[in-house]
Amino acid sequence: MKRTSLIPELRQIIAQEKQRGRVIALVPTMGYLHRGHLALIEQAKQTCAYVVLSIFVNPLQFGPKEDLSRYPRDLERDVNLIKHAGVDVLFHPTEQDMYPHPIVTYVEVSQLDAVLCGATRPGHFRGVATVVCKLFHIVQPDLAFFGQKDYQQYLIIQRMVSDLSLPIEVCPVPIVREEDGLALSSRNVFLTSEQRQEAKVLSQSLIEAEECLLAGERSARELEKQLREKISRNCHGVIDYVEVRDAGDLSEVTIIERPVLIALAVKFGSTRLIDNKVLEVIPHV
Amino acid sequence: MKRTSLIPELRQIIAQEKQRGRVIALVPTMGYLHRGHLALIEQAKQTCAYVVLSIFVNPLQFGPKEDLSRYPRDLERDVNLIKHAGVDVLFHPTEQDMYPHPIVTYVEVSQLDAVLCGATRPGHFRGVATVVCKLFHIVQPDLAFFGQKDYQQYLIIQRMVSDLSLPIEVCPVPIVREEDGLALSSRNVFLTSEQRQEAKVLSQSLIEAEECLLAGERSARELEKQLREKISRNCHGVIDYVEVRDAGDLSEVTIIERPVLIALAVKFGSTRLIDNKVLEVIPHV
Repeated sequence: MKRTSLIPELRQIIAQEKQRGRVIALVPTMGYLHRGHLALIEQAKQTCAYVVLSIFVNPLQFGPKEDLSRYPRDLERDVNLIKHAGVDVLFHPTEQDMYPHPIVTYVEVSQLDAVLCGATRPGHFRGVATVVCKLFHIVQPDLAFFGQKDYQQYLIIQRMVSDLSLPIEVCPVPIVREEDGLALSSRNVFLTSEQRQEAKVLSQSLIEAEECLLAGERSARELEKQLREKISRNCHGVIDYVEVRDAGDLSEVTIIERPVLIALAVKFGSTRLIDNKVLEVIPHV
Repeated sequence: MKRTSLIPELRQIIAQEKQRGRVIALVPTMGYLHRGHLALIEQAKQTCAYVVLSIFVNPLQFGPKEDLSRYPRDLERDVNLIKHAGVDVLFHPTEQDMYPHPIVTYVEVSQLDAVLCGATRPGHFRGVATVVCKLFHIVQPDLAFFGQKDYQQYLIIQRMVSDLSLPIEVCPVPIVREEDGLALSSRNVFLTSEQRQEAKVLSQSLIEAEECLLAGERSARELEKQLREKISRNCHGVIDYVEVRDAGDLSEVTIIERPVLIALAVKFGSTRLIDNKVLEVIPHV
């Protein structure tokens, strides 16, 4: 596995691989990798001859009161973890490499960025879209892989690529979970053992919501209410949002008739966890 | 010269040329071409083996009260004009080709877009940056050519490319003028013969400003005042702005010590003309 923090060096490496006709994959991450990231790499490896993994904790996507400074970082741990995963080049730029001058250009995916996590994290998705657009320009991948745990982020990147005609295919990869259902996240490391124990209610509540839907429930508000009650009853976490929205464009849903996203964010102390499930509606026969 | 309005067809044409190792130039325009555009094409031809000219009147960069509907369009006239100019492929997409779905993604170059033309045309440069970014993704040129008449636009595109790490060199091309000094513009066609006669004062006032600077004037406000007076005395145009600003980042200037941009916008009836000059300061010995 090659390693570089330098944009010009990475460009040169990739240009060579492109000349050899290799299909390039990009897996953009903020590091502190877990099995969720390994699933992204695996998926990338299955479809592309050359896999670029980027690790960059992007300050643009953190609000002034968010956890940029305490976000976990450990490059050598990450390097060890992906040793046999099939990454061809690891790109780990510094802030100075990525933003040598103060950046004034931003990519904004309006509408999609105003709801769910965007509502409580103003500027977050602008930061994400901007850095991903920049990474796309640096790496020029043919395919890029994003985890569905950040479903809204996946939709936003998908829409950015389509609106701006980026010649890239955006590939979603299913959520990877712990045995008790908790969605993997670099932030799970911050949970106390009690919080960790309670946090399994998030995925459980999503499974219950699915069962309700299968049993015939079609009211989005009713589903949200049941989810909220289930979460409140079973943990000390503070609900940020629990919402049922259209799975394609995140628009509001009252009666569930098309595929919907059930998404939630809950704060355990200062650790904010998210989870979601996309539910298809099986029409009554 | 090849012609297409279709993004996939253009991509295919360019991919072939890239495979042959050809350096690709993009000259993005809104059509109704004049000798200013021909100068862009000529410059492109001198440095690049393959020249793409795009013609697209981009609705995103027109305000609701601006002249989108009356902006002059004549594709066959344009095709005739560039017959022997050396364009390899003309890309003339329709609005449907460029924006098949309502666009929600925008590229914004903040700060630089808030002054001069940006102050009186809110959203204009956001529309420009967005469509140019999209054209860059479609064409993937090595070099792109922009006229210095739209100096602020050139700086904004330059900054977008640098901030977002687009692998493109942005090349400025000097203003082309009529014999009496009027900067060429597709909008000149709207001037009455009296307005056309009066409009030469714009370039004349810029030359006078340069003479003042050479004679030792260093006050930005004083230069602006003289320019305004000269314009008001010699035409019926309504001044939108006359400003002296830093030529590198458009920041405010009081005492002229570094290269400055003198930029102006004047409305003749409903036709808004712009012009500018970049002035170097020769240090006193």
